[in-house]
Amino acid sequence: MTTGNINVSVENIFPLIKKFLYSDHEIFLRELISNATDATLKLKHLTSIGESKVEYGDPVIEVRIDKEGKKLHITDQGIGMTAEEVQKYINEVAFSGAEEFLEKYKDSKDTGIIGHFGLGFYSAFMVAGKVEIITKSHTDAPAVHWTCDGSPQFTLEEADRTERGTEIILHIADDSTEFLEEGRIQELLVKYNKFMPVPIKFGTRTETLPKPEGAKEEDPAPTRETDNIINNTQPAWTKQPSDLSEEDYKNFYRELYPMQFEEPLFHIHLNVDYPFHLTGILFFPKLNNEINLQKDKIQLYQNQVFVTDNVEGIVPEFLTMLRGVIDSPDIPLNVSRSYLQADGNVKKISNYITRKVADKLSSLFKENREDFEKKWNDIKIVIEYGMLSEEKFFEKADKFALYPTVDNNYYTFEELQEKIKDSQTDKDGKLVILYASNKEEQHGYIEEARAKGYEVLLLDSPIVAHLIQKLETGKENISFTRVDSEPIDNLIKKDEEKISKLSDEEKESLKEVITAAVPKEKYTVQLEAMDSDAAPFVITEPEFMRRMKEMSATGGGGMFGMSNMPEMYNLVVNTNNELVSQILQTKTKAKQERLIKQSLDLARLSKGLLRGEELTSFVKRSFDMIK
Amino acid sequence: MTTGNINVSVENIFPLIKKFLYSDHEIFLRELISNATDATLKLKHLTSIGESKVEYGDPVIEVRIDKEGKKLHITDQGIGMTAEEVQKYINEVAFSGAEEFLEKYKDSKDTGIIGHFGLGFYSAFMVAGKVEIITKSHTDAPAVHWTCDGSPQFTLEEADRTERGTEIILHIADDSTEFLEEGRIQELLVKYNKFMPVPIKFGTRTETLPKPEGAKEEDPAPTRETDNIINNTQPAWTKQPSDLSEEDYKNFYRELYPMQFEEPLFHIHLNVDYPFHLTGILFFPKLNNEINLQKDKIQLYQNQVFVTDNVEGIVPEFLTMLRGVIDSPDIPLNVSRSYLQADGNVKKISNYITRKVADKLSSLFKENREDFEKKWNDIKIVIEYGMLSEEKFFEKADKFALYPTVDNNYYTFEELQEKIKDSQTDKDGKLVILYASNKEEQHGYIEEARAKGYEVLLLDSPIVAHLIQKLETGKENISFTRVDSEPIDNLIKKDEEKISKLSDEEKESLKEVITAAVPKEKYTVQLEAMDSDAAPFVITEPEFMRRMKEMSATGGGGMFGMSNMPEMYNLVVNTNNELVSQILQTKTKAKQERLIKQSLDLARLSKGLLRGEELTSFVKRSFDMIK
Repeated sequence: MTTGNINVSVENIFPLIKKFLYSDHEIFLRELISNATDATLKLKHLTSIGESKVEYGDPVIEVRIDKEGKKLHITDQGIGMTAEEVQKYINEVAFSGAEEFLEKYKDSKDTGIIGHFGLGFYSAFMVAGKVEIITKSHTDAPAVHWTCDGSPQFTLEEADRTERGTEIILHIADDSTEFLEEGRIQELLVKYNKFMPVPIKFGTRTETLPKPEGAKEEDPAPTRETDNIINNTQPAWTKQPSDLSEEDYKNFYRELYPMQFEEPLFHIHLNVDYPFHLTGILFFPKLNNEINLQKDKIQLYQNQVFVTDNVEGIVPEFLTMLRGVIDSPDIPLNVSRSYLQADGNVKKISNYITRKVADKLSSLFKENREDFEKKWNDIKIVIEYGMLSEEKFFEKADKFALYPTVDNNYYTFEELQEKIKDSQTDKDGKLVILYASNKEEQHGYIEEARAKGYEVLLLDSPIVAHLIQKLETGKENISFTRVDSEPIDNLIKKDEEKISKLSDEEKESLKEVITAAVPKEKYTVQLEAMDSDAAPFVITEPEFMRRMKEMSATGGGGMFGMSNMPEMYNLVVNTNNELVSQILQTKTKAKQERLIKQSLDLARLSKGLLRGEELTSFVKRSFDMIK
Repeated sequence: MTTGNINVSVENIFPLIKKFLYSDHEIFLRELISNATDATLKLKHLTSIGESKVEYGDPVIEVRIDKEGKKLHITDQGIGMTAEEVQKYINEVAFSGAEEFLEKYKDSKDTGIIGHFGLGFYSAFMVAGKVEIITKSHTDAPAVHWTCDGSPQFTLEEADRTERGTEIILHIADDSTEFLEEGRIQELLVKYNKFMPVPIKFGTRTETLPKPEGAKEEDPAPTRETDNIINNTQPAWTKQPSDLSEEDYKNFYRELYPMQFEEPLFHIHLNVDYPFHLTGILFFPKLNNEINLQKDKIQLYQNQVFVTDNVEGIVPEFLTMLRGVIDSPDIPLNVSRSYLQADGNVKKISNYITRKVADKLSSLFKENREDFEKKWNDIKIVIEYGMLSEEKFFEKADKFALYPTVDNNYYTFEELQEKIKDSQTDKDGKLVILYASNKEEQHGYIEEARAKGYEVLLLDSPIVAHLIQKLETGKENISFTRVDSEPIDNLIKKDEEKISKLSDEEKESLKEVITAAVPKEKYTVQLEAMDSDAAPFVITEPEFMRRMKEMSATGGGGMFGMSNMPEMYNLVVNTNNELVSQILQTKTKAKQERLIKQSLDLARLSKGLLRGEELTSFVKRSFDMIK
């Protein structure tokens, strides 16, 4: 048996880095700026504890394109490196200086300054054929100049740089010239570094100054070239909620999503230290415009460095519709989704976010009910989806989820029960909750129910069929019924004797003539003794079938193939209506059929079922009738 | 100045691999099976050219879970390694054996056997704390046993394995126990290795055998345990089109998408050698069920190894709605999207695919026009989107894109022009193409246009507003007009004198009373002398505004904020209709208003504008009228 050391063959390390280090080459800039930021913050720390004698000042990181020379420069005014440190941190690949630093100063509670991206420097070779480092340590050591052309050989010599800090020069490779375009670099800086903690300068911009006193009207205002700073070094989520006004949160929202014109409805400030670190601000946007759902997503940061806007697996699915920022060093990167789902920390983070959102909604509800009601229609889709998918969220949301009526009253479920229990409990003691999905389309039915003194909810979210199914299962002795699912007197069955003007014989004969005159495969004729001024003909669609079809159409639930079932309706004939008596008494067959046909068409109009050719001929017939 | 070699510090190579090699740990299995496949195909090659004396036989790759021992075994019957080869290919990280092999046999035209995944072996350490290799070369050299626990130290000793080939044993780490679950491994094998060229065995399955002669009815049929082979080693796309029947393509579709019940409409077999290698089969699915759009996507393979189902940037966007397989070693992996877009090969591949799809559609159109027409409604969304987004595709598709009429005639644009040029050219010589977007909703308007002898197209794709805008700009002297955008006589303006029954004075007075009786903010009253039996009142909505609103709603085009513009209609009054004369002559103000109101309501019904409370009261009023 022999033993030995695995030998990492250096000839192949650069192709390896180029191919595998990151799937996205643009990441190199984030990595180099993270390093520059670390170097700056390390110096800040050392000066603050007296271990460095230099003055910290107002250090800036500068990014500069040299298009002619095909070079990209990244310069910081941080801690810098001595020749020995270059040897240690640069020449030894995969040696992360951050770990050592962290170990040394681990008691100083300032660990936030260490990024996750220790290996970042070599990502430069993903886009550069040759890389130079010119660096001067904050100590008295002389500056050094390191050069490497992508082979394992480097050169190291003294340099004459006198200012502390590090300049990285990338000789951009021919397949990466996109990184010499100002627009591209600007895009990357804004994407990854918009909120990093050290100012990043990229070029200059022209600033207009106030005119000097005594200047003439026609004199141009004086201008000044000023540094173009990319980032906000102290984004709102790094501050304490007590230091921020409503306006500050709104401004931060605009900063995050410059293309969003609508203001967010409200925010949730996240801030936790144990058992994991997480800060962030989530916003509830108005969700009326579905197209925007995909674009402006929650952004994930680690120590103010942008990581991704794909938070799937970290944030519960129903909250991915929110916007904002989450910043946590405790979320594992580059792992599979199934690993994420199994990770204890990630689960805790997800639960924490869910709880905070529920608590915020609960306090908004309690503190300003009126305002909460106003926002309800914009936020309900998130809350209803959450109630469906997360049991813990359901328990909390059940106290503040609102059920609006067609008259714009908003009840919690408990309030609703209390309000309607006297009038809407049926003969079996079951509470029947009436609802409509569309005020316009179901107008006639809604009016009838209101005339009876019933409350009618307006439930119009796409997932409402699933939600009421869940409520019926979870709560006792309640059921939801849409207003057009039964004739008005049967919506809530009471122990009332119904008196029909017609005799049983008359009824039988009526049913016969009507059944003969309407299409059998679509309508089941049903005679009901209703108020004499209720409509003569009404079309209803049973709740169960309709709901199953809706659930099947929005996915999950219902039964397989339900959405393709043909539509079946009841044609309810009010035996107490005068027109119905008239139909029965009409002697000429043709006239009787005409009356039935016109009545059926009017009932179909009410239910939105008269379309196409039938509507055209109805309109034509009606024009003729008024002539 | 000093020079030196960059030293890859081995202590850190494993954490590096674990963190960065692949973003998705599950990839390790694909890598190890790719290596096993390469090792098998290398042996096949060597035996075929007489450089190996062993018999190739029917080698199988076996994957086996040892749940108790927390181990995963991957065993091949391939080329194997000697101690020297282990030293060279395993102990030297980042040394890709494939390159050397490729170099040596580069003239043998069998390069397809080399995967892109040379570095794969070390990905085992993403999921395993300790890895063992037991391998016996196809030569006479003794077997060896290599072990490494994730430190840079390995041990190497002789082993007693006698069969040629390599067994890899992964001691699965505690954070990766998911890879000891049978279901998970099965899932990964199906995802990545379903079409690899060497049979992969994972466990056994029970096979029912025929009963022996003379067996009794009640005797159970005998069974046999047989190898469970995961993959189809010769998927359809690796074969020649001439060797495949229609049924073979359909079977392959079912193999690819076992959850798809509907058959594809047709397929396109891709096969090109120069200037890039690409094979594949694309399928046009029925696109009626939008929910499936996201799930079953085109899959990208490299030499029969699954890479991804995200083909964004490789396939033109309008073709991402298709399904199927593309297999090409020439598509760069792990690069940014902007790099993909700039890559010459990728551009050529994308153009090639577009051209092949256009050619296939063109030949389907020419060879079986009737069948093409039948499929049109299922494929039009892809073609129309392609015509909008790819100029080259437009040029070809313009010859076969179909324009169906409401009577189910299908014309190409040229045929349509020829068909309607006599009847539908207006007085300025412009060809007016009439269309409807919904046969039911616009039924009354369609009927009127057909009664005039006009052809009415049925254009109901969501992007149709954009497409007709493009056609109007690209072709000369044509315009599209929806049937409900003008009164029938104005749809196509001819040089015809219109004679009105009413005098100018009467017209003025009529306009006055009608304008007074209808809501001003919604309707502009417009008198027209039309046929006496055309409807008395018609509502129209000008083409330009409506189209701009539609374009703005479906994104891109139109003008900013257009979709929020209020709806404005023309109320067209037919001065030659009897009812209109009657309105004019009615003396009682109240009765006149009632007539106007009922007529307006009927016109709104025809245009689908009578809703909610107004519809309810219309129905109530109409019931009263027939009593």
